[in-house]
Amino acid sequence: MPPHFGEAPSLTAFQALTCLSMAQVKALIFDVFGTLVDWRTGVAAEAGRMFGAKGIAIDPFDFADQWRGEYQPAMRRIREGARGYVPLDILHRENLDIVLEKNAISARFDAAERETLNHAWEKLPAWPDVPDALAALKERFITAPCSNGSIAMMVRLARFAGLSWDAILGADIARDYKPKPQTYLASVAALGLAPDAVMMVAAHNDDLQAAQDCGLKTAFIARPHEYGPDANVEITPTGDWNCAATDLGYLADILMA
Amino acid sequence: MPPHFGEAPSLTAFQALTCLSMAQVKALIFDVFGTLVDWRTGVAAEAGRMFGAKGIAIDPFDFADQWRGEYQPAMRRIREGARGYVPLDILHRENLDIVLEKNAISARFDAAERETLNHAWEKLPAWPDVPDALAALKERFITAPCSNGSIAMMVRLARFAGLSWDAILGADIARDYKPKPQTYLASVAALGLAPDAVMMVAAHNDDLQAAQDCGLKTAFIARPHEYGPDANVEITPTGDWNCAATDLGYLADILMA
Repeated sequence: MPPHFGEAPSLTAFQALTCLSMAQVKALIFDVFGTLVDWRTGVAAEAGRMFGAKGIAIDPFDFADQWRGEYQPAMRRIREGARGYVPLDILHRENLDIVLEKNAISARFDAAERETLNHAWEKLPAWPDVPDALAALKERFITAPCSNGSIAMMVRLARFAGLSWDAILGADIARDYKPKPQTYLASVAALGLAPDAVMMVAAHNDDLQAAQDCGLKTAFIARPHEYGPDANVEITPTGDWNCAATDLGYLADILMA
Repeated sequence: MPPHFGEAPSLTAFQALTCLSMAQVKALIFDVFGTLVDWRTGVAAEAGRMFGAKGIAIDPFDFADQWRGEYQPAMRRIREGARGYVPLDILHRENLDIVLEKNAISARFDAAERETLNHAWEKLPAWPDVPDALAALKERFITAPCSNGSIAMMVRLARFAGLSWDAILGADIARDYKPKPQTYLASVAALGLAPDAVMMVAAHNDDLQAAQDCGLKTAFIARPHEYGPDANVEITPTGDWNCAATDLGYLADILMA
């Protein structure tokens, strides 16, 4: 049994594929929210802390899910060109207003408290396998996030979660949001590399499909608990990815072998 | 005598100033070529290696100075809007053609060799005080280069020289070159900070003046040997900077005190 494989015993639908043509891969770029960090636990922790102090009886995990639920609609307007690029910090802040209103607790949060709560997205715990695996991969490969999060968010999140990067790529560099091709292509271009010299690592099949369509190599890792302990979304790689592994620790073992 | 001060005994014209209002400084951004790394020695080493193999009797340090001499004219056209933004890798590559031609050795270098030589700018040694000082400063501050070098160059240079960054800011983010204000302001904005929460660190007074004009805090360090062991340019801070120190090790001691 490969190392790490035992950590996600419910995953039996796939196993590590042989990673072909890794010799030409010079850089790994990563999805972050869900793939490397547990946004749901982190946001719920900060919301729960503030709800507790105010005596608000709303499930903070449900609140985190609602907040995240506004993420795609907000980016969609920018992807479609109906709105110019604004960084995700600002979209999150706008979405927070929406979700506070929906929960009828808008009057309980002043501007400073909303700002504090918005920074919850920079205080997300890494999945346990991530810090060591990422540090090991950085020895061999150039590593960078290719996230929809802004440089400001990614910098603070990396410091909080103990991640170390060579650069911060993604939406801010491209001034557009994944899965728009420009987000991947601008990130690859910023490294001065051809697309097939870069591998996108993500727990989301649609992210990998968009990267593959741009000519990047792809690696899937499973994060069965992204949406909570009882959720089981996207634990199976549905595309023809170059690699697939149960977590980043296992992927690092494969790529560093 | 403060630590590190003795390392540059010829510097008597200034001493460390009291660093005021450091409590509000959240990030340090750095000039790189000359301030953190010894471009002249690094470029001359690579050029000398290739000249030696080809039996070319040109002083590689003189060649490095000539190549660097084309740097400002090439950026000027972009700063003035006569040419759209192109990253410094490409400007260096164009300038290499010019300098090879001037030295009548153009026929001796094919395209692949020119590419190899161009990568000399990613293989520059850090000044000896830099790696440890930068690592110490990163414990307290967000740190990033604010260089005219591209992300691709800065990533590879950091790995070569043993530097660790939170993000790569500067020309590629701004799509313009220092000392244009946009280069500093886009770098500050990418961190989600106000200009006065960011300190620019450089060995060049004009760089610091431009940063100060944008509202950033400023720290001067002396690099008397940037242009060679006998050169003594810019070893004195000529502006009203927030800090000045003989090297980065000493500046780190001041800022971390």
